[in-house]
Amino acid sequence: MAKAEKYRLADIVERFGGKILGNPQTAISQVATLESAGVLHISFLAHRKYRKQLAGTGAGAVILGKADSKLTELPRIVCGDPYLYFAKVSALLNPPQAVKSGVHRTAVVERGTRIPVSASIGAGVYIGRGVRLGKDTVIGPGCQIGDGAQIGAGSRLHARVTIYSACRLGERALLHSGAVVGADGFGIALERDRWQKIPQIGTVVIGDDVEIGANTCIDRGALDDTLIGDGVKLDNLIQIGHNVHIGAHTAIAGCTGIAGSTRIGKHCMIGGAASIVGHLDIADRVVILAGAVVTRSILQAGTYGGHPAQDNRSWTHNVARLRHLDALRERVRNIEQQLPLPKEQV
Amino acid sequence: MAKAEKYRLADIVERFGGKILGNPQTAISQVATLESAGVLHISFLAHRKYRKQLAGTGAGAVILGKADSKLTELPRIVCGDPYLYFAKVSALLNPPQAVKSGVHRTAVVERGTRIPVSASIGAGVYIGRGVRLGKDTVIGPGCQIGDGAQIGAGSRLHARVTIYSACRLGERALLHSGAVVGADGFGIALERDRWQKIPQIGTVVIGDDVEIGANTCIDRGALDDTLIGDGVKLDNLIQIGHNVHIGAHTAIAGCTGIAGSTRIGKHCMIGGAASIVGHLDIADRVVILAGAVVTRSILQAGTYGGHPAQDNRSWTHNVARLRHLDALRERVRNIEQQLPLPKEQV
Amino acid sequence: MAKAEKYRLADIVERFGGKILGNPQTAISQVATLESAGVLHISFLAHRKYRKQLAGTGAGAVILGKADSKLTELPRIVCGDPYLYFAKVSALLNPPQAVKSGVHRTAVVERGTRIPVSASIGAGVYIGRGVRLGKDTVIGPGCQIGDGAQIGAGSRLHARVTIYSACRLGERALLHSGAVVGADGFGIALERDRWQKIPQIGTVVIGDDVEIGANTCIDRGALDDTLIGDGVKLDNLIQIGHNVHIGAHTAIAGCTGIAGSTRIGKHCMIGGAASIVGHLDIADRVVILAGAVVTRSILQAGTYGGHPAQDNRSWTHNVARLRHLDALRERVRNIEQQLPLPKEQV
Repeated sequence: MAKAEKYRLADIVERFGGKILGNPQTAISQVATLESAGVLHISFLAHRKYRKQLAGTGAGAVILGKADSKLTELPRIVCGDPYLYFAKVSALLNPPQAVKSGVHRTAVVERGTRIPVSASIGAGVYIGRGVRLGKDTVIGPGCQIGDGAQIGAGSRLHARVTIYSACRLGERALLHSGAVVGADGFGIALERDRWQKIPQIGTVVIGDDVEIGANTCIDRGALDDTLIGDGVKLDNLIQIGHNVHIGAHTAIAGCTGIAGSTRIGKHCMIGGAASIVGHLDIADRVVILAGAVVTRSILQAGTYGGHPAQDNRSWTHNVARLRHLDALRERVRNIEQQLPLPKEQV
Repeated sequence: MAKAEKYRLADIVERFGGKILGNPQTAISQVATLESAGVLHISFLAHRKYRKQLAGTGAGAVILGKADSKLTELPRIVCGDPYLYFAKVSALLNPPQAVKSGVHRTAVVERGTRIPVSASIGAGVYIGRGVRLGKDTVIGPGCQIGDGAQIGAGSRLHARVTIYSACRLGERALLHSGAVVGADGFGIALERDRWQKIPQIGTVVIGDDVEIGANTCIDRGALDDTLIGDGVKLDNLIQIGHNVHIGAHTAIAGCTGIAGSTRIGKHCMIGGAASIVGHLDIADRVVILAGAVVTRSILQAGTYGGHPAQDNRSWTHNVARLRHLDALRERVRNIEQQLPLPKEQV
Repeated sequence: MAKAEKYRLADIVERFGGKILGNPQTAISQVATLESAGVLHISFLAHRKYRKQLAGTGAGAVILGKADSKLTELPRIVCGDPYLYFAKVSALLNPPQAVKSGVHRTAVVERGTRIPVSASIGAGVYIGRGVRLGKDTVIGPGCQIGDGAQIGAGSRLHARVTIYSACRLGERALLHSGAVVGADGFGIALERDRWQKIPQIGTVVIGDDVEIGANTCIDRGALDDTLIGDGVKLDNLIQIGHNVHIGAHTAIAGCTGIAGSTRIGKHCMIGGAASIVGHLDIADRVVILAGAVVTRSILQAGTYGGHPAQDNRSWTHNVARLRHLDALRERVRNIEQQLPLPKEQV
């Protein structure tokens, strides 16, 4: 990373609010963890359990919550949500690297595609016919963009991303290497014990401000389109089946699979390595825990986990009960040993 | 997608059978869902639960089963399996896009490889030495084909597929972006706490009519070959370990992992995100549910699920029992409360 | 594979130790399984259950353990660990293929990067600014190496690998196609129901002798670095989150996901499709079974499995108990049927 500019705490509070305790002229140039921070770094305390690290930190300044404002004498910014505040400071100090605009001499651009002058097209990129690129788009080396695809302004594709024909990305998309948008959905029908392929004639339509992780796959629709809402954040190695809808501002952690035609609500949080079978409805604001296997629709906001997934209280309860099953069996045995007595009484 | 040709219902029935109710001259040019269909679209009813959508459809014609033939007045084709029939109509209306033959000027082809005149080699493709390509093969932009690989006639590789050296694909293969065929299997042996790599000298041999999804990996064999039978359909992000055999016409949904040396039978259906450990045998016509963790061989056709996987009846039963465990504990408590009485009687 | 050189058993024992029974002049040129071996092949018996295959083998020689030395009359090498011995023989007979050094004419190398004369840079490779490549590195066709990355001597990247900027690989790394090192970790913070991206300013630092499978992803750190120890072996389609540490000589099978900030010890073995949630500590020499969902730290060496993961004895026990739950319910019913009697006695 390039060395960041210096900011004084006073500059930062002017932008993002919060209150300074200690010297407002303290200058910082980068964010760091409490353990590795030096004098030009600002760090943060998101949870009291890191108190000890705070005591030993070499940071020049820290960000912390109101209740913790007295845990250190260091110059500090006191605010409502230290993690979010730190995120903003980090974004300020680490703006996306500027990229030289222009089309690399080794890129191939087919007829009918116009490249905006502000766009950057990397080495070895292939762009098909009739593609529409917004201004300031960055297409990393080795990307493949199919015929008729659209990529909104300010979007950035890292190296080696594939966008199949006719798929549409909104503005400010960020895609990581190996992501595949618009491959055929898994649509097959049996005919006398052999699978017949069903053409996948829908596309993928992705909203604004979406991030897609490395090697994540989003399949094109079978008939209608696969839809990813605004602000959706997808981690690595996720599989999104054909015709899935993902509501705005839902975040999904890595290795999760969502089978075809399932509809996920808005503002959901889905843990890593979760599996959601096809043709389900998941309500808004549902939280699904890592490793859950969701086999039925979830119609109410709440937290769900387990295999098969159930509301988290039941799941935790079941796991505990299972652990106590030995004790229950012992009790039954005790009862049985007492039972012959009354019997003999008869 | 390019606009499809028009067909009359009479033309379609002449090809695929079935019976027309309503005007056989009704012309259609594309397939669509009941909800989004317009007057030039043909839709289908695969299940009675979509009856309501049928009532409101704007489709020009529909495909439905014999029992449902009176659910609409629209021009319709009545047949035995509406989903399969629709698949065939869709394939008729949406033939694979024609691709211009020839070798792109930016492709690299090593010595000893002959490209058929009917083949299409995309931009930035790399083809090693002694590769054999069948006629009409389409190698998408950015693909990498290792030395001595073979790809059968009529096969299509989308952008950015990797075939390692000496691997063989049958005819009419369809591979999606990011698929990797023939990387080393995970073969390591411990020597004094350090892992020694075991060379993976087998290859991958794939039958005819196989589809491989985006970012799916099929490892080369350690000694003998990894074998994928005719007509196998693999979804995205699947891992097939070294020396695995997959029987003909088996279909596997996304995110599934099959560990080394396991042998899967013919005509199996494996749900998404299933895990099958190594060195197992899975019989023909086994169905494995999404999320199952298969730890033992399955020697009989049937449906299996759960963690660890068991026959589906037992799994469903166990899950239900677990849910009723609280009730059972309550019953034991009730019994215990009664027990002191007889004891005192003694 | 190219035809291997011939070796006599005497040559092999001179290198790797062990004892020859039968003719020490027996020549072999390749390793093979007992079933497919021919007269110029050496095979091995790792487990008595393959005895039958040994009886029928066409191999010219076999490797076996002391206890099994009389199971065949074939020329044989008797040693302590036949599987490891076979691994060494295979490595001797199958050295990595020599690769022509030089930079392919279609490769792009940015300013500030010096390519060692012994290195091989394949077709269509992109190498950014200020990259450091050790001697004898092999960068396969279609690889993308970001600015400032470092790759140690003797490393080999197969086709289509991506290394993001500033990430560092040790010596003798082996990376398979589609692997992505250094994509952004999944760092987001909520602000009024919308996700704000947290810049990921750490890198990935990888030790010596590490193998990384096809389509596996290792995210860069959020602030500090993601660390992969010496001798770590990663299979395909694995997800390693930001700030994860993996201790030296740990091996992880395919489809496993490790969430952010988790620290895995040394000499662990993690089965396929395991999920480990974030911010956990896993001790040295922990074995985690396939499909396990690890939700708590594991502080002691041992074997763990299940969902949620627990020590393997408890998990196996629980699974068995669950299977016997019906019997337990039957016993409770029997007791209940006896209970009215004593009651009536009262």
